[in-house]
Parts: sequence; structure tokens; C-alpha cells
Amino acid sequence: MSDVARRPVVDLTDEEARLRLPLKWGVPDDVIPAWVAEMDYAVDPVVLEAVQRMLADGITGYPLFGWDPGLAESYAGWSARHFGWAPEPEAVHPVVDVTAGVRLAIDVFSGPGGVVFPTPGYNAQFGLATVTGREEVRLDVPASADRAEIDLDRLDRLFADGAQTLILTQPHNPWGRVFTRTELEGIRDVVVRHGARVVSDEIHAPLVLPGAEHVSYLSIEGTHDHAVAVVAASKAFNTAGLRCAQVVVPSAADRAVLADQPMSRNDSHSPVGAVAARAAYDDGDPWLASLVERLDQQRALLADLLAAHLPDVRMRPLEATYLAWLDASAYGHDDAAAVALERGRVKVSPGESYAPGTTGQVRLNIATSPDRLTRIVERLAKAWA
Amino acid sequence: MSDVARRPVVDLTDEEARLRLPLKWGVPDDVIPAWVAEMDYAVDPVVLEAVQRMLADGITGYPLFGWDPGLAESYAGWSARHFGWAPEPEAVHPVVDVTAGVRLAIDVFSGPGGVVFPTPGYNAQFGLATVTGREEVRLDVPASADRAEIDLDRLDRLFADGAQTLILTQPHNPWGRVFTRTELEGIRDVVVRHGARVVSDEIHAPLVLPGAEHVSYLSIEGTHDHAVAVVAASKAFNTAGLRCAQVVVPSAADRAVLADQPMSRNDSHSPVGAVAARAAYDDGDPWLASLVERLDQQRALLADLLAAHLPDVRMRPLEATYLAWLDASAYGHDDAAAVALERGRVKVSPGESYAPGTTGQVRLNIATSPDRLTRIVERLAKAWA
Ligand SMILES: Cc1ncc(COP(=O)(O)O)c(C=O)c1O
Ligand SMILES: Cc1ncc(COP(=O)(O)O)c(C=O)c1O
Repeated sequence: MSDVARRPVVDLTDEEARLRLPLKWGVPDDVIPAWVAEMDYAVDPVVLEAVQRMLADGITGYPLFGWDPGLAESYAGWSARHFGWAPEPEAVHPVVDVTAGVRLAIDVFSGPGGVVFPTPGYNAQFGLATVTGREEVRLDVPASADRAEIDLDRLDRLFADGAQTLILTQPHNPWGRVFTRTELEGIRDVVVRHGARVVSDEIHAPLVLPGAEHVSYLSIEGTHDHAVAVVAASKAFNTAGLRCAQVVVPSAADRAVLADQPMSRNDSHSPVGAVAARAAYDDGDPWLASLVERLDQQRALLADLLAAHLPDVRMRPLEATYLAWLDASAYGHDDAAAVALERGRVKVSPGESYAPGTTGQVRLNIATSPDRLTRIVERLAKAWA
Repeated sequence: MSDVARRPVVDLTDEEARLRLPLKWGVPDDVIPAWVAEMDYAVDPVVLEAVQRMLADGITGYPLFGWDPGLAESYAGWSARHFGWAPEPEAVHPVVDVTAGVRLAIDVFSGPGGVVFPTPGYNAQFGLATVTGREEVRLDVPASADRAEIDLDRLDRLFADGAQTLILTQPHNPWGRVFTRTELEGIRDVVVRHGARVVSDEIHAPLVLPGAEHVSYLSIEGTHDHAVAVVAASKAFNTAGLRCAQVVVPSAADRAVLADQPMSRNDSHSPVGAVAARAAYDDGDPWLASLVERLDQQRALLADLLAAHLPDVRMRPLEATYLAWLDASAYGHDDAAAVALERGRVKVSPGESYAPGTTGQVRLNIATSPDRLTRIVERLAKAWA
């Protein structure tokens, strides 16, 4: 990738960000938003031009039903280049977004038993199991753990007790972790022993930072008959509103089951999102390389800022994503996010919404300018001091 | 409306249609498509410019969670102008599309009993009940009925036998009917007697043709505590791929239930679709007036063409939509759509997919140019003769 002409990451001004990111920036003027997983960067012009061209052509109608060969080829090519493994294009099915894809996969492929959801977990996925009519079985990683990982003995017991599905988020939000091949093999062994299913949410795969490497769960031997991956370009390319993710279904038998579902289960993806995804997968590498470089710099800056201003915050290594999980409990505030907002005028995500029943933790979004990140940490320090 | 400067309906050339409507026009070159519910007309420039402007501004991020005040006001204004009744804006909730909105309403508001689905019914809504974990209970209108209507005695019996929800499609696809106030009151009385729920799919409401008038089920007294309507600008404005519909929830108690749902149940609408919907609701009247006039002309042309070329086709009056339901069984072909395609090179929708177990019926999409409609009927006549 290094010999391709790079496209730079362009920081949005506050005014631009308020216009383009109405959810994240829907905060009072004196507040710096560092919560929901969107980046204060302009969308890669190659991606934006692709959707602009589509609408200049007046394309606003239904996409093809079911499988979309162009999108499938684009994803397969991307996956091969970035992850050294690729599904066959037949395996790649469009869905409206990742959350809907995870729901679809559980609905269609899983037995009726409980769904294991490792926590802290992505906040919008709480309740996903119950929406499918299944029990949500939490597998907590304690705040005190040195390393956030899935305890295989406990996973084994939960399956023995009747759970039948694992939601595997990898790279993990909010742990910030990348799972190693060895870890994934360990998970597979437990899953296979119990005939359980895995739904691997890999939306953050393009956002693995230098020092780690993304391994798709589907690239592990012996996973294809029990697992799907849910992937998207939308998180790395800041296009969550355009609405297209993909479920990778490597088993032909599973694909037959999916094809047999009533249309009403899954006919909502937007062709606008599909065009954005194809542009990102086909032509987004020169921008993504700049993005990862920038996030790596932001990660280093965060470490310096925490050392200087918030030395008692505990943070595990950030291996992927632009979402840092901070344990600020040393500063003594139960609802650290509320204190940050009130006294510091910084909006971070409350740890409670990822790890119910815990206190003193927050999730901090570092995908902004160095200047904003500096002000954010200075304000947090003032607020929590 | 008549004193507002009209914007004309612009016919797409075959080449334009193939580019803009990839699903409908994904047919061999010698086939005229008259199947899926999309129109061979250019999108209202006011709507297209609104989404183009949005993407020129680089807006690709998440929409606001839950209620969208601007969209809600726009729909309420539109509903008041067009239907003489409007929900309070608090009642209008975005969803990704109508099908998902109907599913959401059943999932969230309905008891576990069966879902009554009048048939012939919109093909993609078959299986919707089972997707929510409920039994699908069909209420068939026989092909021989003089008028397609819901038999209230049978509806009463189905509720007595345990069904708890009615999917009311009105205006109806593929019946082409508009329900009268009196009919709706009759339905309400039966529903209320059994404490059942109604989900009123009103996507075709803007497409009521001269001679009839749309009455929202929610404008009938005594419906608010048991009904929601699912509405959209997407069918009348040809923007189904942009992905935003609305569920109108008139009861504050129901709204509280909806607000309590996990995000994963309903966070997939696209802001691109929401912008298109607002433009249509706020500024689309001068285009819609032209559209309805054109569809009225197409309806008259169809009547002439059938009289001239296919006198034995039976068709009930088309009061709304651009979808004509034709009983061609007099011509003796069980799969009349397959014969139309093979011998006539016209793709119509097979009646079987709306009315399982029936023969000789097709659904014909008349939203095209007069010239194409003429060729379509001439070809059907040759094929079926
Ligand atoms: C792990 C994870 N999955 C899914 C999502 C949401 O994806 P979508 O908007 O496509 O549902 C996020 C958003 O941040 C996420 O972090
Ligand atoms: C009655 C009816 N409901 C719903 C739909 C589909 O709407 P959506 O694409 O918003 O799910 C259609 C499409 O033609 C329809 O005729």
C-alpha cells in the first residue's frame, strides 16, 4: 500500500462537524463531543464522489434482491488484500447495518438457547438477544482484569448450561482489543464441543492499529459450519448513515437457509450504502492508510496526555478502534461521564452503558484533531480532579 | 393545489430506466418490465436536489436516535393538507422502510396470537407474521368476488379463534382499492370487540386517483389505542432505495412502550431517506399533482387497451396505486405471467405470489409511458391469445 499515492485525512472544523455529524455534534456549543463512534474527519473523497455520482444519475430505486455480485466481489477483494483471507463472493450478503446483520444471523441460524454477550459490550447490542426471543447471557470481564479476554472455562459452562450462541466482537469495542489466532482457536474449540454458533462482529477490522493484525474468525479452520461474520466499511469510512453492511455466510447449507427466509426479514439495505461500501473496498486503501496513521498518532498523544494530566486513569493497550476505555475510578466519581459533561463540558460515553452496574469508567472517542483531543483530556483532568 | 406551478412528470428512456431502476429493469433487452412497484419516471427534481445537497455537504453520519422533530413536522403538515387529518408530530417515528415498520409494530404492540393477512396481499408481506413468531392467518378474497373487501364476519371469527392483529393495507396493493370511512368503521368495531390490534400500511395513500379519497385508519374515532399507521413518501416519489418510512403511533402509552425498546430493534433508517421524505412532504405537492394526473390517464388508457385487445380480462375498478390486478383466467393459462414473459416478452408479477394457490391472475404496473403501456397490452394479448 505504501507506494500508492496517499489521500490525507482532513479534519472537520467545528462548524463542518456540526453539519455533517448531527448525532455526535448535537451538543451545546461549549461541549466537545467524544462519545458516539463517528470521526471528526471528512469522508474519503473517493467514497463521497461515488455516492454523489449515483444521485446525480438519479438512482434512488430498489437494489437487487438478495445477493449483490458487485458488492460481494469488492468485499472479497478487500478482505484478501487486508486480512490475507477472503470468503468466496457467494458468501457475502448485504444487510442494512451491522446490528441488523447480527440480529438476522441469530434469528436465522441459532438455536433457541441463550446468547452469550461478553461485557463490557457495545451498548446498542444490549437487548439484541432478547429482541430475537432469546436470553441474554452476560460474560463479564472485570474492570480489574489485566487483559480483557473471554474466559474459556466460563464460556464452556455457559454453553453447558444451555446457551447456544456467542456474539464475538473482534476487534472489540469497547475493549480496544484484537483477538489473536490462538485465542480464536481456543474459542472455536469450546464452541465446537457444544455445537454452538458464533456471530463475529468485525466492523472494526479495518481499524486495527500498528502492532496488531486482524484475523477473521472465519479464517480459522473448522469455523465455517457454525459461524458468520458481520462486516462493513461504514465504521472505518464514517458512512454509518448510508446503511449497508454485509453478512459473510461461508457455509453453503447456511446460505440455503438464508435464501429461504421471507423477504421481510432482510430487504432493507440501501443501494447508497452499497455504492459507498464498494468505493471504499475497491478504492479506499490510500485514504485508510492515512487514517490508521492518524489514529496511531492520536493513540500516542492520548498516552502522553493521560500521563501528564490524568496519571491515575487506568487504560489497557489500545490495539484497534478509536475508542479508548478508561477506568477513572481512582478519581472517585461514580458517574464519571456525567461529571465530565457537567464540570468539563466534554461528552464521553458512560461506562455504565457498556458495563451495567459498574462505576467510574468511560469510553473516549479519540478520532478527532490533536488539538481537540488535547483540550478533551485537559478538561477531563479539571473535571475529575 | 391547482394554483401552484406544476412540475411535470418526465418519462425515463429505456436507457435511463435501466440505469436508475436496476431491479425493475434488470431484464433482457427485449423484455418490457411491468412488475415491481417502481415508476418509469424521473424523481421529482426537488426531492433529488435535496439529497444531492445533503451529500454535497458530506452528511453521511448517523441520524438522531428515535424521534426526528423535523421529519415529524413535515409528515404532519403533509397529512393535514392531503388527508384532512394529522397526527401530532410526537406520534411520527422514523423506521427504515414500511415492511420493517409493520414488523416493528407487530413485534412491539401485538399479543402473541395470529396475524390476519387479507389476500391477495402484498407479496413481500407473506411470512411477515411468522418472522415475528406469530401465525399467519389468511383472509382470502375470492377471485370471483364482485368487490374486494374484508368480510367482517370472517374477521370476527378469526379474532374469536385467537388472532390478535390485522394487517390492513389501505389503499390496497394489489386490490387497487381505497377503503371508505364506513368500511373502516366496520373493521374498527370488530377489532374493538376483540381487543385486537391494527397495523395500517398506508404507503399508497398519496396515490389515490380521482374519484376516491384516502381516509387514514387513525382518523377514525376510537382507533388510537389499538392502531398504528405505517406511511412513507418512498412509493409515490420513487425513492424506495433511500430507506426511510414512518410509523405513526397516536397513543402516548404505545409511544412509551416503543421508547423502551432496545436500540437494536429499530435504529436503521437512513438520513438520506429522511431528507428525501422531508423534501417530498414539504415541497412535493406540485409534482405529485402531475403524477396523479398521469396515472389517471394511464388508468383510462389501460381500460381502452383492455377493451380493444383483451376483452375477456376481468379487472375491478382501480381506485388507487399504479398496480392493476388482472384476472386473465378466461385465456386458459395457469401461469399467465410466465406465458406473458415467454411469448410476449413482458414481465408482469405472477398472481400466485399475491394469492397463493390461484391461477390465471397477474399484477400489471402501469406507471410507465403511454407508448410502453400500449405495447405491453398488445404483447399480453398476443401472448395469451
Ligand atoms: C462493535 C460494533 N458493532 C456494530 C456497530 C454499529 O454498526 P451499525 O451502525 O452498522 O449497526 C458499532 C458501532 O459503533 C460497533 O462498535
Ligand atoms: C402495500 C405495500 N407495503 C409496503 C411496500 C414496500 O415498502 P418498503 O419498500 O418501504 O418496505 C409496498 C411496495 O410496493 C407495498 O405495496
